[in-house]
Amino acid sequence: MSDKPHVMIHSSWYPPALARLDEIAITHHLYKADDKAAFLAEHGPKCSAIGTMHSCDVSLIEACPNAELILNFGVGYDGVDVAKASERGIKVVNTPAVLNDCVADMALALLLSSRRRVVHADAYARAGRWAAEGDYPYTLNAHSTKVGIVGLGRIGMEIANRCAAFKMEIAYHKRTPRDDVPFKYYADLVEMARDCDIMIAITPGGDATRNLISRPVMDALGPEGLLVNVARGSVVDHDALIAALNEGTLGAAALDVYPSEPNIPEALFEMRENVVLTPHIASATHYTRMAMGMVLYDNLKAKTEGRELITPVN
Amino acid sequence: MSDKPHVMIHSSWYPPALARLDEIAITHHLYKADDKAAFLAEHGPKCSAIGTMHSCDVSLIEACPNAELILNFGVGYDGVDVAKASERGIKVVNTPAVLNDCVADMALALLLSSRRRVVHADAYARAGRWAAEGDYPYTLNAHSTKVGIVGLGRIGMEIANRCAAFKMEIAYHKRTPRDDVPFKYYADLVEMARDCDIMIAITPGGDATRNLISRPVMDALGPEGLLVNVARGSVVDHDALIAALNEGTLGAAALDVYPSEPNIPEALFEMRENVVLTPHIASATHYTRMAMGMVLYDNLKAKTEGRELITPVN
Repeated sequence: MSDKPHVMIHSSWYPPALARLDEIAITHHLYKADDKAAFLAEHGPKCSAIGTMHSCDVSLIEACPNAELILNFGVGYDGVDVAKASERGIKVVNTPAVLNDCVADMALALLLSSRRRVVHADAYARAGRWAAEGDYPYTLNAHSTKVGIVGLGRIGMEIANRCAAFKMEIAYHKRTPRDDVPFKYYADLVEMARDCDIMIAITPGGDATRNLISRPVMDALGPEGLLVNVARGSVVDHDALIAALNEGTLGAAALDVYPSEPNIPEALFEMRENVVLTPHIASATHYTRMAMGMVLYDNLKAKTEGRELITPVN
Repeated sequence: MSDKPHVMIHSSWYPPALARLDEIAITHHLYKADDKAAFLAEHGPKCSAIGTMHSCDVSLIEACPNAELILNFGVGYDGVDVAKASERGIKVVNTPAVLNDCVADMALALLLSSRRRVVHADAYARAGRWAAEGDYPYTLNAHSTKVGIVGLGRIGMEIANRCAAFKMEIAYHKRTPRDDVPFKYYADLVEMARDCDIMIAITPGGDATRNLISRPVMDALGPEGLLVNVARGSVVDHDALIAALNEGTLGAAALDVYPSEPNIPEALFEMRENVVLTPHIASATHYTRMAMGMVLYDNLKAKTEGRELITPVN
């Protein structure tokens, strides 16, 4: 009989990384099951860990009454009921640090694509409009602009370092100012938006930041302003966003995250010149997804061998 | 009678900047004329300067026999017959330095858009494929890659500074190595391509660099390699490029320039996943186009007032 721990896999992650987990665990793939209730009833009780990507609610925790560990593939754990886990003595681990670079890269990819209109210009070129209609319209520049970063944690710092190379002036907003950065701090988000050309959201999700980027913030960014979101969809008031873009009080948006994924508000689909939409791929590179999976692997191994967890969040 | 110099404007540039020229010159807009020969015959002889964007051949020079100055809107002057101009004692000025940042921004916009598949992922999102088909495929990463810059002049250095912020390892190729940079120098382009994930071309055009990026260079970059071109279309062998992309020996290309602009080789149009195409917009921001126009304005003013030219190329 194997002494490998059983793990209930609620949602799949990067397959090569998930495959590595089978070296040290017996995995039960709930997302593949047709009858999920029956699957949970059969395998839930023997599982000492739950693996998930973003989402783990009370019912899943209760279906695995012997779980001691939740492996969350991702840095954001706003979809995991950490309070309930803590109450039951279950530890939660996430995958911080290893995705910082890829998420920061994506923030800049969105920023530059939007300011320089790469997506729309590509369509213009492919439609033969350059030869038929003449030069593509002039765009706004990216360098030498003022950027406000909402949330200056580890990923925010990576974004700031990249923005600095583009000679951007950097400001930031978070609850409490940092004492280790030379960037201007704003306690008030509307005030920061008024002083900035570009705003990048990279703050944690959850109730504390819900609709933090509100209509007044968008209007303060202004008709030439750009909002980039690589945080969570919940951070931006999307009804307000659609209205602000339609009315032109906000110039542009470049989004990787949405309130109700994998759905994207359809009103954004026809905004082709000033909106860039990517399907939550900020950390979705082979390189980073493998690194994220190995952080969970290492945590499970540590737990099994009685060592301290590496990246606990509770 | 005005003592403003007459200027033959061969091709239009950023209208607000061109309008500024009328403060200090009488401009004749050849590109608007139906009968160009008649227009040149009437206005050519009185012009002491020619204004152009990239192109000024012998016939234009000969049609303006009293020209003493050619104003070239752009840093590349491979379309200007500088040899013929020099022979006739005509000075040529261009617009260096002021466009460095925007061109470097565009190089990174193309690099990041391609590596992270922004254009294709945007189309995937807008088509509703995320909800219907599932997550977008994993992509290659941008950070921590090896980039080879072909041409390490002023723009190349701006590109290198930006790449460094993405933790890329930087190498370069030019005719003679620089003694003021810490980057690895390659005399051989195929060798550099073999060692790199990404190659960025930002070398001057003209005969000396024609088809410098050849099939062997592309094949050495390899099936996961990316070629970014913000130099001139002539620098890349486009027949070889199309073949290399079709056969998969080169992974991806992101291009802002083409051999026969405003035409783009149509074989590239259907390559949607791994090719990004922009219509020569690297310096086409309001900010930079105005700055470029003012460099020509300042040169013409200096010439009129008997001062030294600011940015002569011959």
